[in-house]
Amino acid sequence: MRLHHIKANAFHAPTLAAVEELPDTLITCDDQGTIVAVTPGGDHADALRLPAGQVLLPGFVDLHVHAPQYPQLGSALDLPLEDWLQHYTFPLEARYADLDFARDVYSALIDDMLALGTTAALHFATVHVPATNLLADICLAKGQRAVIGKVAMDDPAACPDYYRDASAADAVAGTRAVIDHIHTIAGVGGLVAPAITPRFIPSCTDECLHGLGQLAAETGVRVQSHISESDWAHGYVQDRMGQSDAESLAHFGLLRPHSVFAHGTHLSESDMALLRDHGAGVAHCAASNAYFAGAVFPLRRALDMGLNTGLGTDISGGPSPSIFEAARMTVAASRIRQRGVDAAAPSDQRGTGEAPIDMATAFHLATRGGAQTLGLPTGSFAVGMKFDAMAVDTTAAAGTIRPFGATGLRLLEKILHTASRPNIAAVWTDGVRRV
Amino acid sequence: MRLHHIKANAFHAPTLAAVEELPDTLITCDDQGTIVAVTPGGDHADALRLPAGQVLLPGFVDLHVHAPQYPQLGSALDLPLEDWLQHYTFPLEARYADLDFARDVYSALIDDMLALGTTAALHFATVHVPATNLLADICLAKGQRAVIGKVAMDDPAACPDYYRDASAADAVAGTRAVIDHIHTIAGVGGLVAPAITPRFIPSCTDECLHGLGQLAAETGVRVQSHISESDWAHGYVQDRMGQSDAESLAHFGLLRPHSVFAHGTHLSESDMALLRDHGAGVAHCAASNAYFAGAVFPLRRALDMGLNTGLGTDISGGPSPSIFEAARMTVAASRIRQRGVDAAAPSDQRGTGEAPIDMATAFHLATRGGAQTLGLPTGSFAVGMKFDAMAVDTTAAAGTIRPFGATGLRLLEKILHTASRPNIAAVWTDGVRRV
Repeated sequence: MRLHHIKANAFHAPTLAAVEELPDTLITCDDQGTIVAVTPGGDHADALRLPAGQVLLPGFVDLHVHAPQYPQLGSALDLPLEDWLQHYTFPLEARYADLDFARDVYSALIDDMLALGTTAALHFATVHVPATNLLADICLAKGQRAVIGKVAMDDPAACPDYYRDASAADAVAGTRAVIDHIHTIAGVGGLVAPAITPRFIPSCTDECLHGLGQLAAETGVRVQSHISESDWAHGYVQDRMGQSDAESLAHFGLLRPHSVFAHGTHLSESDMALLRDHGAGVAHCAASNAYFAGAVFPLRRALDMGLNTGLGTDISGGPSPSIFEAARMTVAASRIRQRGVDAAAPSDQRGTGEAPIDMATAFHLATRGGAQTLGLPTGSFAVGMKFDAMAVDTTAAAGTIRPFGATGLRLLEKILHTASRPNIAAVWTDGVRRV
Repeated sequence: MRLHHIKANAFHAPTLAAVEELPDTLITCDDQGTIVAVTPGGDHADALRLPAGQVLLPGFVDLHVHAPQYPQLGSALDLPLEDWLQHYTFPLEARYADLDFARDVYSALIDDMLALGTTAALHFATVHVPATNLLADICLAKGQRAVIGKVAMDDPAACPDYYRDASAADAVAGTRAVIDHIHTIAGVGGLVAPAITPRFIPSCTDECLHGLGQLAAETGVRVQSHISESDWAHGYVQDRMGQSDAESLAHFGLLRPHSVFAHGTHLSESDMALLRDHGAGVAHCAASNAYFAGAVFPLRRALDMGLNTGLGTDISGGPSPSIFEAARMTVAASRIRQRGVDAAAPSDQRGTGEAPIDMATAFHLATRGGAQTLGLPTGSFAVGMKFDAMAVDTTAAAGTIRPFGATGLRLLEKILHTASRPNIAAVWTDGVRRV
């Protein structure tokens, strides 16, 4: 049943600069779940009233999810990236030729993500067209706003024989088939949308990357990939292409508006400018970067130069499916980047000295920042936005928030630092309750 | 009711080198909750049998908790250490002159810690004798194994008039009063024990530190304090004492067996050797260090040199009360310490290059490592240990573990990376169920 009026104490962060409290506010939606009025102090006889102790937040946007890797979440984190792919990840992803397996995993994942307040996500699937289509069907049925891509990976020199596209032409044709399926089930601009998804340059032939760039130009569909993650991946692309990941992606026509590239720890200033100038953005995956990237993403510099950025869990390169946890690690990693790691070095030479990311900024990135990066009409409580939201019960006994009388922004800070799954009392997308 | 026989699939990490699986094992305890037999494949008619999907782990040991700071958990993390104390923390701690306030907070905290699987903790209380005694009463009543100290802080130049010991003599007398109370309620070697607790050198006069050292020698009671946390605190002690924290603490007779010092990010190799040689240890607080310490503790070096170490949440310098979270941050921070933060630097000059801490090692530190540091007879399933344990339900729908068929050490890794409060099905100390 679609919600038309809700009255709640709400918080949102519509811009990087501002977290706003919307006390005792009436939010009104139309029949499509689009917000048509936000009225502090307003009321309506039919309004759903959040109980005392519950507050309303925008749903979270997860900009980097490998949906098929959910079964290995929280394990298999002991190898370097290139070995991790060959040893653990490709064998797991190959199993999605089996649609029963795919249905079980994808159903569990989307249920769990929604229960954790993640109302929108950018998903990598696998090379398989049927299983990727199934993931789109499941997101649509369960109501997660999702952008989904069949993974393209065709280079026999880098991908195992048992798990790759048979050819560049097959990679492009499969990608097109998924785009067609998603546009058929959801329409253009619907709850679920397609993404052109070269895994990363080391997995793809030039022919494949070129064909996907042409497909992007033809269809206008978003692109997602990995970019400049780890010394190995960064160095590989430099060696093969004679230029950086960002420059190579631009060369193939894959840097496009609202396209999203994960990690970016090794992006230079000029690489970041190139992404920004093409309207593309970065999925910042703070937890996974600690395992695989070998550096902390220069998030403060990215924000200062106006590069669109949001947060990603990187299931399963990161061990948590929760954007709450991603926000916490974003803040902590930024502190360590600022101050450095080794007290044996003088304090002014230990870290980068860049201003750290505070929780208010991380909250923006987890909501409107991620939505804006991906070009989704959601992430804040403003007229014209889709109503994607969560009700957080700050009093749940089984949860982990203990307000001790905190109110206002102090309460929001506590929620963001300490909430866990039992604190998420309800979740909506398009104004329809999903949890 | 005391448990005498339990049959379960268990994991423990009795040494740094080894995580062990104890499949289908009978654990037998005597009337005091001491383990008298561990029998793989054994059985007993009266045994409590954990249901399928549940596994048994040793309870966690939290080596650094500021119990009175629980109300500000997950907030007020924006200032440097010295300002954070004066602006947020001392005003909050001063409120524990009110025993009703103390009872509410301490009861909530111990309930929550037990529910998160923390069966043993080393607590800082406040300067107040009555409220510190009350914390001990509450730990004993609820069954948390606890070592508790009245905070000593008497230097008028560093501590506010509204919150400090009136004199060095008062600080020592108050500390003695709490020791006497705890020995009266719990006996010597009971579930609750006292700690001599100079806040840190910057808060205490030489006379106070000297008096506490004499008291430690007289009573044999453990000492706890902070050590070499942040450039500011480290530099302050060097300036005032002409030597490091560790050297100063040794000078005052405060480096004693099973004494525990928090943070230690700025300890030199010789400082760490001094602690080790006195039988003292370090509480590693990875989350809080990201906020306040300005460096990552050299945990790998500490372990390599045989310095006793365990994990601390540092409630509320760290934003989570969970040792699961402390273990996760320990692993992530060690990765960042190894590899460094700034990809603009060459990879071999970016971090320290030290081997990172894996989750198996963090599990040892969270259990037997912490217990050994503090000198507690718990933390593993071995004959002679107290039965302090948690049952983890890997199938709880409201929880966050998704095994997908994982078994053995792969399942343990998933538990440690992804468990949350709803996964903790039962908790025991001394063989008595507490949750």
